[in-house]
Amino acid sequence: MASKETLIVDCDTGIDDALALLYLLRDPDVDIRAVTTVFGNIDAVTAADNTLRVLELAGRPDIPVAIGARDNWLGNAHFAPYVHGADGLGNTDLPAPTARPVAEPAAELIVRLARENPSTLHLLAVGPLTNLATAVLLEPELPGLVKHVTIMGGAIRHPGNATPAAEANISNDPEAARTVLTAGWPITLVPLDATMGERITEGHQRRLRETGTPVTAFAAQMLDQYFDFYEGNVFGDRSAACHDPLAAAIAVGDVSPVLAPVVAVDVETSQGPGRGATVADVRGQYRNFPAQDDAHVRVVLETGGDFAELLADRLCDDPTPTRRVA
Amino acid sequence: MASKETLIVDCDTGIDDALALLYLLRDPDVDIRAVTTVFGNIDAVTAADNTLRVLELAGRPDIPVAIGARDNWLGNAHFAPYVHGADGLGNTDLPAPTARPVAEPAAELIVRLARENPSTLHLLAVGPLTNLATAVLLEPELPGLVKHVTIMGGAIRHPGNATPAAEANISNDPEAARTVLTAGWPITLVPLDATMGERITEGHQRRLRETGTPVTAFAAQMLDQYFDFYEGNVFGDRSAACHDPLAAAIAVGDVSPVLAPVVAVDVETSQGPGRGATVADVRGQYRNFPAQDDAHVRVVLETGGDFAELLADRLCDDPTPTRRVA
Repeated sequence: MASKETLIVDCDTGIDDALALLYLLRDPDVDIRAVTTVFGNIDAVTAADNTLRVLELAGRPDIPVAIGARDNWLGNAHFAPYVHGADGLGNTDLPAPTARPVAEPAAELIVRLARENPSTLHLLAVGPLTNLATAVLLEPELPGLVKHVTIMGGAIRHPGNATPAAEANISNDPEAARTVLTAGWPITLVPLDATMGERITEGHQRRLRETGTPVTAFAAQMLDQYFDFYEGNVFGDRSAACHDPLAAAIAVGDVSPVLAPVVAVDVETSQGPGRGATVADVRGQYRNFPAQDDAHVRVVLETGGDFAELLADRLCDDPTPTRRVA
Repeated sequence: MASKETLIVDCDTGIDDALALLYLLRDPDVDIRAVTTVFGNIDAVTAADNTLRVLELAGRPDIPVAIGARDNWLGNAHFAPYVHGADGLGNTDLPAPTARPVAEPAAELIVRLARENPSTLHLLAVGPLTNLATAVLLEPELPGLVKHVTIMGGAIRHPGNATPAAEANISNDPEAARTVLTAGWPITLVPLDATMGERITEGHQRRLRETGTPVTAFAAQMLDQYFDFYEGNVFGDRSAACHDPLAAAIAVGDVSPVLAPVVAVDVETSQGPGRGATVADVRGQYRNFPAQDDAHVRVVLETGGDFAELLADRLCDDPTPTRRVA
């Protein structure tokens, strides 16, 4: 049977990256061809290690993992252990992986797979966009070779989270984000406007814990760290935003946005207070967003608000791996 | 009796500037010491001429009008006849004024009156902030000499109107706006987030027309041009935002904001897509906006939505001039 989506997942694994991977891995109709890693929540090498741990927990050590950019284009990367824990996975002590990352660098892998599978691959990017931008520099025809790009990132009518203006993935490499968002491929951007409205709560965590499979127990344990951060710094209660899992669910068609106009998007790359802001032209908001010439970014401004329920359902429903090792 | 507020109104008159002036002039407890003009909706000289016409219509030719900045700091001003009509007042052919502007330049007048009336003056700025910034350069102690500054401008969780990121008053001189917003005076900023939610409609226009005083007939006639613009470009129906009148009403205490946190505000002054964006730190929105050290800008994010009713009431209630000529 044809898979419903053939993905390369580019991530900085990360608590919510791990949840996104686990969510996708439980759907037998989703074909993850490779995972590429980038600095962001954690360094790119640890992100690859974390990814392998998560893939093995889900019974999929066969999926290749490639390490990508270790720093952004200006060379000032920093990580977020205060959000994701010192290990990036909420200090959960998941067993060390038996598999190892492939030797091929992330951007080269993306270009190679796109050439081998023209108009087939869906790139799901849930970290800084350095790998995708590098891939576009390696192969300027890349935007015509991939089917779609879904990106978790940005903040439009919502404040940033890394700075008052900028969301963390974009803030971590605004130059790369500008390259990717202004390249001519069809993009779905899932910004904070949508993800902050999709909250996973202690109720979901309890359900994951009580289900008690290795996957759900791990997810529940990670959420402790995530809730600690969100309680003190964001929501003031023990809940968290479903950033990366929501982008994953939108990429594979599980979630249909409530409001998602196709609009022009650019990124501010100054060194001023707006650095890293995603400037989307949503001025048509009072007139049902009239069409804009040459716009090619679908910006998800609103989703239904009940995605965490679906996420918990998916993780809890079937404790067996969704796909055999090849 | 002590006036409830002693104002200098700095404006680029302008349909909604004219409405703001008429609104204020009908309150006998508001003392307008001077009006200063700036380029923006129209050129600064025409703005002064328009202001004098409006003051004379309201029976107040005694209020001094001073011409200010004819261009922004980068020398690339442009005006908005497509919004406000070729004359800036909706092509209403109000009689030419008998009074003339004073010789003193706007910024000098602001500094002089502030020195003469320390801790007394409330600056209400509803155009580009070039005059206020110039006044701060002339007198660095100015922020300590005025009582308060209320500014119509900016867009926080709302799209811009001049560009996707920037509201027109800020966009017209981002460098000046940054100077003013980061000076240490107490500021109330009234951005599009608030003003776009306060709409004057055809119902209000009908009431103004039927009341039939010179002031209300003029207001109703101006609204034709304003509604033309808003119908085609903003709301898709014949209504318009109460930008400047709302800021005026907030300045004199007639309208109490529903949501107005005191937060850090800066302005992006790059030449990138974020130029002119007002970057306000509203990341505390999920936690009732915890206090921020050194923040001194009260940002009005939400008002009640029924201000146009008050505006129409004020203009219609009493057809006689609110104050005699001195």
